[in-house]
Amino acid sequence: MSSLPLGVFDSGLGGLTVVHALREALPHEPIIYLGDTARVPYGTRSASTVIRYARACAGVLTERGIKALVIACNTVSAVAVDMLRAELDMPVIGVVHPGAHAAVSAAQAEADRTGGPPPKIGVLGTAGTIRSGAYSRHVQQLSTRFEVVGQTAPLLVPLVEEGWLTGEVPRLAVRRYLEPLLEAGAGVIVLGCTHYPLLRPVVEEVLVELTGHAVPVVDSALATAHTVRDMIAQGTIPVVKAARGAPLELLVTDLPGGFQAVADLFLGEHTPEVKQIDLVMS
Amino acid sequence: MSSLPLGVFDSGLGGLTVVHALREALPHEPIIYLGDTARVPYGTRSASTVIRYARACAGVLTERGIKALVIACNTVSAVAVDMLRAELDMPVIGVVHPGAHAAVSAAQAEADRTGGPPPKIGVLGTAGTIRSGAYSRHVQQLSTRFEVVGQTAPLLVPLVEEGWLTGEVPRLAVRRYLEPLLEAGAGVIVLGCTHYPLLRPVVEEVLVELTGHAVPVVDSALATAHTVRDMIAQGTIPVVKAARGAPLELLVTDLPGGFQAVADLFLGEHTPEVKQIDLVMS
Repeated sequence: MSSLPLGVFDSGLGGLTVVHALREALPHEPIIYLGDTARVPYGTRSASTVIRYARACAGVLTERGIKALVIACNTVSAVAVDMLRAELDMPVIGVVHPGAHAAVSAAQAEADRTGGPPPKIGVLGTAGTIRSGAYSRHVQQLSTRFEVVGQTAPLLVPLVEEGWLTGEVPRLAVRRYLEPLLEAGAGVIVLGCTHYPLLRPVVEEVLVELTGHAVPVVDSALATAHTVRDMIAQGTIPVVKAARGAPLELLVTDLPGGFQAVADLFLGEHTPEVKQIDLVMS
Repeated sequence: MSSLPLGVFDSGLGGLTVVHALREALPHEPIIYLGDTARVPYGTRSASTVIRYARACAGVLTERGIKALVIACNTVSAVAVDMLRAELDMPVIGVVHPGAHAAVSAAQAEADRTGGPPPKIGVLGTAGTIRSGAYSRHVQQLSTRFEVVGQTAPLLVPLVEEGWLTGEVPRLAVRRYLEPLLEAGAGVIVLGCTHYPLLRPVVEEVLVELTGHAVPVVDSALATAHTVRDMIAQGTIPVVKAARGAPLELLVTDLPGGFQAVADLFLGEHTPEVKQIDLVMS
């Protein structure tokens, strides 16, 4: 059991930022990743469609044998974590709860620093994530003292996938999405999509530009990797026994070409060979 | 037979620009439109996946009864027209051939006007369309005197779907994609994706800015509507008999909400009720 890999899936490439954070936090753990590139993006789809796709992705990974399932996609985490947790006999970790937890800590730290009430938590995400209200629900579960405001940011995923990470266009697009959050009183910003960490420098720069000071930015991908690390430290997920050479296996549902080409950027390391699989719909 | 509607399909919303042009050119013809919104966009997918999806879309429309099939999607037209033409017993019209034809006419008109050789034809399109080289092939079939250069423009579809059609960001994005085409010698620009006609004003403006003069812009959606009109005039497609009240039926594969909301913009008229259908994969 302990030698089984961590299973990670996403609608496409974005979840590789979670894999990257996992490999930094847990260098000895083997990982199997599935990107449903034939049906990316999930962010614009209805909850019922996302749940159907998520079940199929989880099925592929559990059949291959995993010890825990990490949903490295905010859109899926927003609507399908409870369903997958009920259906699967293993720990299931989404990105929304760890992101919400990190955001609450950051907002509390701001309140402690300023001596005032905590600022609102501003979430950038896809249409599906924002519409679901998932960050708001998870934050409310942690404490009713914190308020969440959401903003859809449909251009950020294509900007990242095109590698357009600097200059006027990403700056103006990020500005367009941050302005309404700041106007609504946000003082902590959550990168609520696994593509967004690649735009973190632009987000931080624009925040300084708009407010005149640094604003805490929370990366759900990073927060999720830390949650998995804690669960392994606590024994909720068994630690790998053979602590050497942690393999990384990458699966996709469309041809691997495009994926392979940009994966290095997301993963921050050389990408192993990507395999295409068929995904039978449940 | 003649009373059957024209069947039109696209990966999502974009094909509605073709429906708009068809309804202007052929106000008496009933139309049934299918947008495969559950799996949009096709533009980033492999040819084999696009062919599989296209076959399923065509199946839905032919089962409901249509007199001709219009593929209102450049990505599908680029790879699946021949296959669908071989499998279906009716006229099948893609957007690439009409677009290529209109581009050749425009380039020839430029040559006549300047007295020099014809300029190159620059095509803006999705990754799938450009990678396929379809415009180049279709232009070469018409005449070997004309050369095609292609440019992928991944940000334009999300810009259109977000309704961000004016200002700095669409201008800079369009500029980024037009510059390499002009540097390569393009003197006619083809809007090789059915979303792009909504950005036509920006494209024309940036072309004047970059070249100091007007550059002919070819709209494949419009060219396709004219081809269908000609086929009806020639009797290749039977003309509708009852020339009054041409109904428009809209089908989608994901929840209709988001589609309904932006469809008016594409269609240029009030959108009738959109129905969701299941798409059984062949």
